[in-house]
Amino acid sequence: MPLSTPSQKALVPFVSVENMMRFVLHFGVETILKELTEAITADFARWQEFDKTPRIACHSRDGVIELMPVSDGRTYGFKYVNGHPKNMAEGLQTVTALGLLAEVSTGYPVLLTEMTLLTALRTAATSAMAARALAPKGARTMALIGNGAQAEFQALAMKAVLGIERVRLYDIDPQATAKVVRNLSGSGIETLACASSHAAVEGADIITTCTADKQYATILTDNMVAAGIHINAIGGDCPGKTELHRDIVARSDVFVEYAPQTRIEGEIQQMEPDFAVTELWQVLTGQTPGRTGERQITLFDSVGFAIEDFTALSYVRGKLEGSDFYQEIDLIADPDEPRDLFGMLQRAR
Amino acid sequence: MPLSTPSQKALVPFVSVENMMRFVLHFGVETILKELTEAITADFARWQEFDKTPRIACHSRDGVIELMPVSDGRTYGFKYVNGHPKNMAEGLQTVTALGLLAEVSTGYPVLLTEMTLLTALRTAATSAMAARALAPKGARTMALIGNGAQAEFQALAMKAVLGIERVRLYDIDPQATAKVVRNLSGSGIETLACASSHAAVEGADIITTCTADKQYATILTDNMVAAGIHINAIGGDCPGKTELHRDIVARSDVFVEYAPQTRIEGEIQQMEPDFAVTELWQVLTGQTPGRTGERQITLFDSVGFAIEDFTALSYVRGKLEGSDFYQEIDLIADPDEPRDLFGMLQRAR
Repeated sequence: MPLSTPSQKALVPFVSVENMMRFVLHFGVETILKELTEAITADFARWQEFDKTPRIACHSRDGVIELMPVSDGRTYGFKYVNGHPKNMAEGLQTVTALGLLAEVSTGYPVLLTEMTLLTALRTAATSAMAARALAPKGARTMALIGNGAQAEFQALAMKAVLGIERVRLYDIDPQATAKVVRNLSGSGIETLACASSHAAVEGADIITTCTADKQYATILTDNMVAAGIHINAIGGDCPGKTELHRDIVARSDVFVEYAPQTRIEGEIQQMEPDFAVTELWQVLTGQTPGRTGERQITLFDSVGFAIEDFTALSYVRGKLEGSDFYQEIDLIADPDEPRDLFGMLQRAR
Repeated sequence: MPLSTPSQKALVPFVSVENMMRFVLHFGVETILKELTEAITADFARWQEFDKTPRIACHSRDGVIELMPVSDGRTYGFKYVNGHPKNMAEGLQTVTALGLLAEVSTGYPVLLTEMTLLTALRTAATSAMAARALAPKGARTMALIGNGAQAEFQALAMKAVLGIERVRLYDIDPQATAKVVRNLSGSGIETLACASSHAAVEGADIITTCTADKQYATILTDNMVAAGIHINAIGGDCPGKTELHRDIVARSDVFVEYAPQTRIEGEIQQMEPDFAVTELWQVLTGQTPGRTGERQITLFDSVGFAIEDFTALSYVRGKLEGSDFYQEIDLIADPDEPRDLFGMLQRAR
């Protein structure tokens, strides 16, 4: 191993929000969503290589703050992310995030980045990955219930990866729906603002729920779910926060990211602890069938897992080299003689 | 609650290594060590208010990467920290760290800072806090075994808080000892480089061990420990990494930070799971006596706990206001309309 030069290690590439926006606009949202879908699929296919743990959540009355670490033995990553449904009323994001990658061999950070935008992108890419494996063939219409910060990214990922052409929108706040209609105009996706969630699901091949309220909500009731549909349930991602009526979960084939975490946070927190689920990586590697019949209801009980963030961080890192989409920040104390931290401080005088 | 203005929230104060050095030099190392000791003591005194968890460790052959979160219900903090004993041979720090504070009510970060220097400071302040409660009255001489990056900070904290006048030094590498002698010249601490650990402990009232090797080491054997002494064991802080012979632990009264974490990581990992220990906060609040006799051996089995980092982060934050010891970084995506993350991206074009 070559001698590491401390001067290189002391500076950590940092991607600000502004640089992340420049990054995304430069490469294109749909290109990034497609490439991220492939990258997450590739990392899910090597599931066994990762040192996994359910995320570490700190709950309060107003929301949750989480740390999501994972390592593949060479690289370590973690995301800091919050979920505060009441933030919106104060003009703040419900979900904000930042992330870090580090070398496992030294523990030195190699990337720090905003992850609010990146989380929206990786969540949409993960939905598309799951839908590609589980949705009915030839799906062209998606119902999208909950038209907040994640909505456009979900729609565009389903278009880019699956060829979804029509999105039927519903939100309890018509202004949120109008925002999505406006933002997706010119995207090639046909949008339809619906007056109710019942109207939104009519004729849909895929139903995506991404609502923010922290409660045992029933965004979908059993009579709304037709045979053969794929449900992409994103918003039930926290203890006490679900979106689907229990009966839907009971009659669906349920696919999850990492079962030990989803049993705490997902729709299946409503079910018995031994309720049968399939981890998505098993479908992606061909170990277990995904969709097996035309009348089967498949449910991706998505809560968001650390490997998706690890992939997103690694993806960004891979594309940063030689670019100007980052700045270097002086994050790591770096004395010439590593044991002489105190001397470094004295010499700084 | 006043409406938060997104433009303020989007920018997070960041303290770089250079600014942390300026900060420490401006206020003075000993002043900071004294104030941090009082601040950590105050936070340990409100132990029950904190939402605590053992740190989340990711182990590899070369070292460990850890996340250390904690919250007091109003503020949330975490530290990222690595421990890689083999780094030193490559010219890198064994321990590097960074930390973040956030508002519990919104999940928005309010401070990001380097913590390599800050960890050395808070570890020393914690040692001083424990020694003030446990060391024999009138202690003036400390043996310091392991003369790496933490050593000078430990010595200065013991001087500033307890009035330690003499430090007897030993390291397997005489160059490390020479570095401490050099760095502490003019500090008012009398230093003596010793030829062995046996020589170093002669006449000491306090023995501090802070070695880095990841192994079941025996820095101290039972015959080296005289009656009445206080041992401050810092280096045994990871599964498979201890410094003291089991017999010393067995005949000491053992004080720990947070027992569920110390049983995994500390010297007491050598003992039975029900080996009796006292959490330090109980001594600091007067619930349990600390030192009760002149011949008693007290052992602070220190592994480092998240509350110490929380205190250090809060302390720095409190002193930053109105100063130029930080810069603001663009870390949080901040659309004018919180649900319009996608629109923010489009408008950035």
